[in-house]
Amino acid sequence: MSERFERVWTVRFSDTDPFGIAHYPRIVDALHETSDMFMQEIGFPFWEITEEHGYGLPLVEMNFEFERSVEAGDDVRVTLTPDLGTRSVRFEYVARRDGEVAFSGFEQRVCAEREAGSREIPDDLRAAMAPYAEE
Amino acid sequence: MSERFERVWTVRFSDTDPFGIAHYPRIVDALHETSDMFMQEIGFPFWEITEEHGYGLPLVEMNFEFERSVEAGDDVRVTLTPDLGTRSVRFEYVARRDGEVAFSGFEQRVCAEREAGSREIPDDLRAAMAPYAEE
Amino acid sequence: MSERFERVWTVRFSDTDPFGIAHYPRIVDALHETSDMFMQEIGFPFWEITEEHGYGLPLVEMNFEFERSVEAGDDVRVTLTPDLGTRSVRFEYVARRDGEVAFSGFEQRVCAEREAGSREIPDDLRAAMAPYAEE
Amino acid sequence: MSERFERVWTVRFSDTDPFGIAHYPRIVDALHETSDMFMQEIGFPFWEITEEHGYGLPLVEMNFEFERSVEAGDDVRVTLTPDLGTRSVRFEYVARRDGEVAFSGFEQRVCAEREAGSREIPDDLRAAMAPYAEE
Repeated sequence: MSERFERVWTVRFSDTDPFGIAHYPRIVDALHETSDMFMQEIGFPFWEITEEHGYGLPLVEMNFEFERSVEAGDDVRVTLTPDLGTRSVRFEYVARRDGEVAFSGFEQRVCAEREAGSREIPDDLRAAMAPYAEE
Repeated sequence: MSERFERVWTVRFSDTDPFGIAHYPRIVDALHETSDMFMQEIGFPFWEITEEHGYGLPLVEMNFEFERSVEAGDDVRVTLTPDLGTRSVRFEYVARRDGEVAFSGFEQRVCAEREAGSREIPDDLRAAMAPYAEE
Repeated sequence: MSERFERVWTVRFSDTDPFGIAHYPRIVDALHETSDMFMQEIGFPFWEITEEHGYGLPLVEMNFEFERSVEAGDDVRVTLTPDLGTRSVRFEYVARRDGEVAFSGFEQRVCAEREAGSREIPDDLRAAMAPYAEE
Repeated sequence: MSERFERVWTVRFSDTDPFGIAHYPRIVDALHETSDMFMQEIGFPFWEITEEHGYGLPLVEMNFEFERSVEAGDDVRVTLTPDLGTRSVRFEYVARRDGEVAFSGFEQRVCAEREAGSREIPDDLRAAMAPYAEE
């Protein structure tokens, strides 16, 4: 019952620098957009969870390594794999161009209620993410 | 032989402001990305035309009107219709959500060579855009 | 008692494209940031007016013309002049590099209450903007 | 002869999300802008080093931790301290609001020539950064 979350990010001219490669902040935009697409895919979009469920998944740490540059027109395949903890989840990213890793890393997110602070990840959210996690 | 260029822009959480609606600069990003997607569609991507054809389509004017705000999760259908002049082209945009216009406007672009300045739009580019123009 | 609002935008490497000139969306970011700085200067910051005064200044139209490109390291002097109407205000921008106009245009904004729609610009906001307006 | 590099980032309305706090990608923009300002300060701006010196400082890793959220209108003091290696340099960032750390982290950059790959940091660049490094 394992599923895999992947999206293709096409690097645009407006993402690129004087050497024709993507600016780092634009890569971070693409990674962040990927987390947004994943949460939508599993039925817990960022724009609904607080209002409808009363908690959020704020970012507490991000770490990315850049191995190969990407250029305008490149189709970059970005996978997101959630690594589920008790009160937090790590979104692990690998981005490949032509099968080779261009950049990879993670976003560490905690489950938190607006006032009460961190809390356990609720069962329904855990169940929605679990099929995408590594066994 | 008329064709229509349309893309769907899904507004993301990270595009939205304290009222839950998209920030204007993020809307401009989405419009600009649409021009990039159109040029790729017709076979003259922004990232190739200068190197391969020796000219570009720099922006000389932009005008947008905002009628309705858009929110995270909205699927905004953006159409781009080129209005072809002799030495310039106007990209006309209409963005609809649930069938109603949210924002619309145009980008005026001139055909220009890096050193020589403005020039006529070459026949092959004109032919590539023409099917998408209004009759 | 006339005052002049001007800020200097230093174009950054991360704003520039493969030709070394600023991407248009990054110019729009800089213009929008200028409106934010102006509202802060006159004591009605965007982040306070709705909460403290019960209205906002949503954008209904933007128009910009681009005459000269700007490059990383350029210090671009951007002036903002409010043109006050009864229920709306037009922010007029002129951006110069080395004294020559690089780009210019306007943002048309209406005064609106969240539920009730457009309203007259209140006297205190009008008084705060007036010294910066053209005579 | 120790110097300290610090800049103030004023969070803008257009940086903020539905909870009124800055979006993460906008924080990354501000951090990246800080590196650009630092390189300008020491006389080796990003937009000149490749053309004039024949090398660059591409990013190979970034790591940031977020401890406190920041809001529109906040003046965030960001310090950048270079930690100099032989062929690489780590830019260490600490961002404080009202004296308390809001976010911190590093960018790891290597010194690289376009074709030849990584190289030692040249003496003049090292000398320019050294006064800002920790003893």
